[in-house]
Amino acid sequence: MDGHHQFDIDTQARHVSGEGDRQRWAVTLGSGWNIGDKPNGGYILAAIAEVLGQAVRRSGAPQHPHPLTITGHYLRPSTSGQAKLDVQILRTGRTFTTVHSTFVQGDKPRLHVLATYGDLASQRGPTLQTAVPPELPPPDECISRKDTDGFPPDSSMGAQVDVRLHPDTGWLTGTPRGVGESRAWIRFADGRPADPVALLFFADALPPTVFDVLAERTWVPTVEFTVHVRAQPAPGWIRAVTRTRHLVDGRFEEDGELWDSEGRLVAMSRQLAMVMQGG
Amino acid sequence: MDGHHQFDIDTQARHVSGEGDRQRWAVTLGSGWNIGDKPNGGYILAAIAEVLGQAVRRSGAPQHPHPLTITGHYLRPSTSGQAKLDVQILRTGRTFTTVHSTFVQGDKPRLHVLATYGDLASQRGPTLQTAVPPELPPPDECISRKDTDGFPPDSSMGAQVDVRLHPDTGWLTGTPRGVGESRAWIRFADGRPADPVALLFFADALPPTVFDVLAERTWVPTVEFTVHVRAQPAPGWIRAVTRTRHLVDGRFEEDGELWDSEGRLVAMSRQLAMVMQGG
Repeated sequence: MDGHHQFDIDTQARHVSGEGDRQRWAVTLGSGWNIGDKPNGGYILAAIAEVLGQAVRRSGAPQHPHPLTITGHYLRPSTSGQAKLDVQILRTGRTFTTVHSTFVQGDKPRLHVLATYGDLASQRGPTLQTAVPPELPPPDECISRKDTDGFPPDSSMGAQVDVRLHPDTGWLTGTPRGVGESRAWIRFADGRPADPVALLFFADALPPTVFDVLAERTWVPTVEFTVHVRAQPAPGWIRAVTRTRHLVDGRFEEDGELWDSEGRLVAMSRQLAMVMQGG
Repeated sequence: MDGHHQFDIDTQARHVSGEGDRQRWAVTLGSGWNIGDKPNGGYILAAIAEVLGQAVRRSGAPQHPHPLTITGHYLRPSTSGQAKLDVQILRTGRTFTTVHSTFVQGDKPRLHVLATYGDLASQRGPTLQTAVPPELPPPDECISRKDTDGFPPDSSMGAQVDVRLHPDTGWLTGTPRGVGESRAWIRFADGRPADPVALLFFADALPPTVFDVLAERTWVPTVEFTVHVRAQPAPGWIRAVTRTRHLVDGRFEEDGELWDSEGRLVAMSRQLAMVMQGG
């Protein structure tokens, strides 16, 4: 990406020191990606993934540009502003480069990330799918997340990403359906095309689907978030579906799928999150 | 567990050196958990999780005994025999302890693991589930994995674990259904009860479900494997269901659910794996 889109500005990786398998990088989280007063977890993971891709290249593995599977453990909330990343290249093989990183703000680690990079363009093998993309009315007939109470007050993220929710999204109207499924169109508001790093952000761009089974709105912090990027997305809208089927003792999964405009599955995600009550 | 069951013997953690947030441990992988000539990936993850649980306890956090979410990246195949683990306690908070580990054999890292530990018994919060356990005929009317060609030659794992597959598992009879779903009962052959660590093994104990969409049997190595343990299992058989819906360019996910004898979801798993062809 060429850097004049806000997402590229706000994920720009800066090399600080170190070469080879130990490198230090920096990134400055923008203030325009907040849910309430905290940066969105998918945006943070995407910013980290951009750094890791650059670090993999710098380590001598430019043939592995794409995050194929990335897991973040969220130790503490992050904030907008500067962050440092300690990056360790664990192994570069023929097909994959595996990498670990600690994301630090104010001398405190906020996230630990483990990821495998490779090349989506050179993948070869059989393709057999039994699932289909989520059905959605055209974007104009959907409900913009900005026009709902799907953001907490003061969320800045709504200006960056254009999320159009299926009109049957029950909790939007104050009547949860109890199904635990949300469907939406997603694209950047400024026309930036989707790419593998952007998919990590899109995978966390819908309102928590647990609101469709839980009557109350509450803080639902992510414990762990894993995204598999399965293909490079074609230009155009991304279709997203998220599902929560198991809320057990206040802990739940949110499973996501992202599909591109050509009907291809481009990413799968799963997070473990928790319902914070009484606070 | 009291150590006279084979799984406990073959996951026994030995402290080598170090205290606090940096510890070194050892474990000896048994030869009875192989698929072909390689230890099963879920068994390796379980052996690592047993070490991590002991390391978390030793670091001063005995209040966080259970793996809640654990991710392994498989860098190279492992073998039976001795392994060393470098364990780093990343953070202990009120609710969670996060930990990273490198699993090394013959001076080569084989797996990197990132995990969050906590206490399943003290979880409190709402429970709302929209999914149900997989339907299965009684174990006696199912097909034992040992009696199928669901193991490659020389697999020793069949003697340890009692897997009873649903009789409609299409690829068992040489006719893949193209559905990408497998269902089975699982328990240890020697009567050891299931517990959170054992669930990590059970989550990888079924034959690859991709065989239900892919006509040929081939090597399908795991790239990354994540398990969420959601509850402590009740005594008795575990019911498992695994699904593969997206085989894209030779890469696929396998999603798993484990349910206990009281109809509770106790674990969810997802792995990213690849089809190796022509070799």
